[in-house]
Amino acid sequence: MTHQEKISIPTLGRGTVNLTEKIQTVVGKSGVPAGMCNIFVHHTSASLMLCENADPSVRSDLETFMSRLAPDGDPMFEHTAEGPDDMPAHVRSVLTGNSLSIPVEAGRCMLGTWQGIYLWEHRSHPHTRRITVTVQD
Amino acid sequence: MTHQEKISIPTLGRGTVNLTEKIQTVVGKSGVPAGMCNIFVHHTSASLMLCENADPSVRSDLETFMSRLAPDGDPMFEHTAEGPDDMPAHVRSVLTGNSLSIPVEAGRCMLGTWQGIYLWEHRSHPHTRRITVTVQD
Amino acid sequence: MTHQEKISIPTLGRGTVNLTEKIQTVVGKSGVPAGMCNIFVHHTSASLMLCENADPSVRSDLETFMSRLAPDGDPMFEHTAEGPDDMPAHVRSVLTGNSLSIPVEAGRCMLGTWQGIYLWEHRSHPHTRRITVTVQD
Repeated sequence: MTHQEKISIPTLGRGTVNLTEKIQTVVGKSGVPAGMCNIFVHHTSASLMLCENADPSVRSDLETFMSRLAPDGDPMFEHTAEGPDDMPAHVRSVLTGNSLSIPVEAGRCMLGTWQGIYLWEHRSHPHTRRITVTVQD
Repeated sequence: MTHQEKISIPTLGRGTVNLTEKIQTVVGKSGVPAGMCNIFVHHTSASLMLCENADPSVRSDLETFMSRLAPDGDPMFEHTAEGPDDMPAHVRSVLTGNSLSIPVEAGRCMLGTWQGIYLWEHRSHPHTRRITVTVQD
Repeated sequence: MTHQEKISIPTLGRGTVNLTEKIQTVVGKSGVPAGMCNIFVHHTSASLMLCENADPSVRSDLETFMSRLAPDGDPMFEHTAEGPDDMPAHVRSVLTGNSLSIPVEAGRCMLGTWQGIYLWEHRSHPHTRRITVTVQD
């Protein structure tokens, strides 16, 4: 049995949005007691990750790391149609991925104590990001 | 219900192969209206990614990025049994991943407007890559 | 139908643990002939990967690569609460991922000839890592 729900998430530009409670609500409403939850983002310049949920400096350090790994405006990139953050956003998305698969137990995603579900916006400007949540038992 | 199909994809050496239409055909044939599609590559020196599908310079920039991140022939690598591109191919595969999970709706993978499904060959020479597509409702 | 089993894996500190046979046993016991297997690690400083299973130098080269990419004690990191390996462990986990989805056929994960399933411990000290295996047909 497949339960699917689409959600739209506004972002404030580059940075993370904590989706954990929103996803747990969708999984609870699905009525699936045990199975799998998949979260999928329909874009190539935003990604999804599980990340430490207690200390915000973990997420800011991840930004720092990515800014060094794929700097905005790097002259090695040819694809600059939408600005200096365009190609770095694609690189970050490919490295971190478009979907998460999480086991479901007792009607909830079985996250570890320190695991939060985050949307990671990689573009400088705010966007609205479309996400599909699929729960299967 | 599980529908599985195996496909073989010839590559021309390092670079990407657009699998989008091939995968959509498999999903359509499965008869599954809504559920999940998983695409899995059975190798450790090729990977799968969702990538911008309009401007080919995005994929060539990803090659440039990876060539800087894990250069062929880097003396830090010990594992050179199959040549200077051997270990970089494993690094690239581990960073980008062996499988994609995509929600299915109305008998098709629900891709975003700019998302294409690509096989990424990381070895210099042509290979035949085995892929399994699993569709579940 | 969903079959779930939880396993605990002790690690010896930074490095890989081959889980292939353990996972194949869980899949075999599930009685699922064809479907999907998901392996999920409930932590943010350890990850799962499919990696070449023949030459141990591939895994040691991956360690070398990650040590250069996200060095312990890098002064750019603010989050050092648990020591110099704390933030690099989060970076490595985000880059390599918390879960694997592998097709099941004839009661086994359909791995390629050279694919092994590895838990990758990113912290310097030994830990016990919790993993959930979900098999669905």
